[in-house]
Amino acid sequence: MSDQCVFCRIVRNEASRSAIYEDDEVLAILDFRPVSEGHTLVIPKKHYENIFEIPEEEAAYLFRIVKKIAGAVRLGVNADGISLVQNNGKAANQVVFHLHVHIIPRYEGQKSSRPREVVEANFLDKVADRIRESVLTEHTL
Amino acid sequence: MSDQCVFCRIVRNEASRSAIYEDDEVLAILDFRPVSEGHTLVIPKKHYENIFEIPEEEAAYLFRIVKKIAGAVRLGVNADGISLVQNNGKAANQVVFHLHVHIIPRYEGQKSSRPREVVEANFLDKVADRIRESVLTEHTL
Repeated sequence: MSDQCVFCRIVRNEASRSAIYEDDEVLAILDFRPVSEGHTLVIPKKHYENIFEIPEEEAAYLFRIVKKIAGAVRLGVNADGISLVQNNGKAANQVVFHLHVHIIPRYEGQKSSRPREVVEANFLDKVADRIRESVLTEHTL
Repeated sequence: MSDQCVFCRIVRNEASRSAIYEDDEVLAILDFRPVSEGHTLVIPKKHYENIFEIPEEEAAYLFRIVKKIAGAVRLGVNADGISLVQNNGKAANQVVFHLHVHIIPRYEGQKSSRPREVVEANFLDKVADRIRESVLTEHTL
């Protein structure tokens, strides 16, 4: 855990977040500057800078959850496609140096919004509600 | 396994490939139209169209291998960063409908090459050699 790391602060619930999923190891939240509606970040709660630092076992678990959440995001926001993106290093456009996986919903005929703009927390919470319902539905099926 | 699927043909060794890693479940090859030097694809040998179709357990194993190979690619081609990208659905620019994970090396001050051009098999084989050495080194450490 790092005092300066924004994702560590989010994990500790010291910064605002719209959470979709949480367990002992992993947290999934909505990106507050989404590339598209439903843009989600899945992060390990422990601070690892990148995919090279995280132990293999924990990486496997992280992506197991990513797969689960990606399905829920797709249903929750009715996306036509989903891209998973995980950047390591400044040269790869990593901005927050706490390992995270982007789940980016894609919609036919719609380009991703660039520049990315900050979205109101209220709105994010509503999107999170819809995705959470999909996670729950999947779990009870 | 599908007769039409190019990745199934590569898995069966019926189409040319520069392989980096292979086990019972997973194959890693170099992309013959690389975005950058060392651009690698990791695919499950079984035919699944996308991340939604593959069982959770197999997805976890696939990404365990992706993590391992990503480290080897970084060393083998001396990349400054690595992006992992996995696209699902036409709307997400999926072109080959057999689940695959891109490992894309990034270099400081260098944009990815677009349009992507086909690279000679001989050249790819040399890059594959360097990356394979890194996988082996890692395994013996």
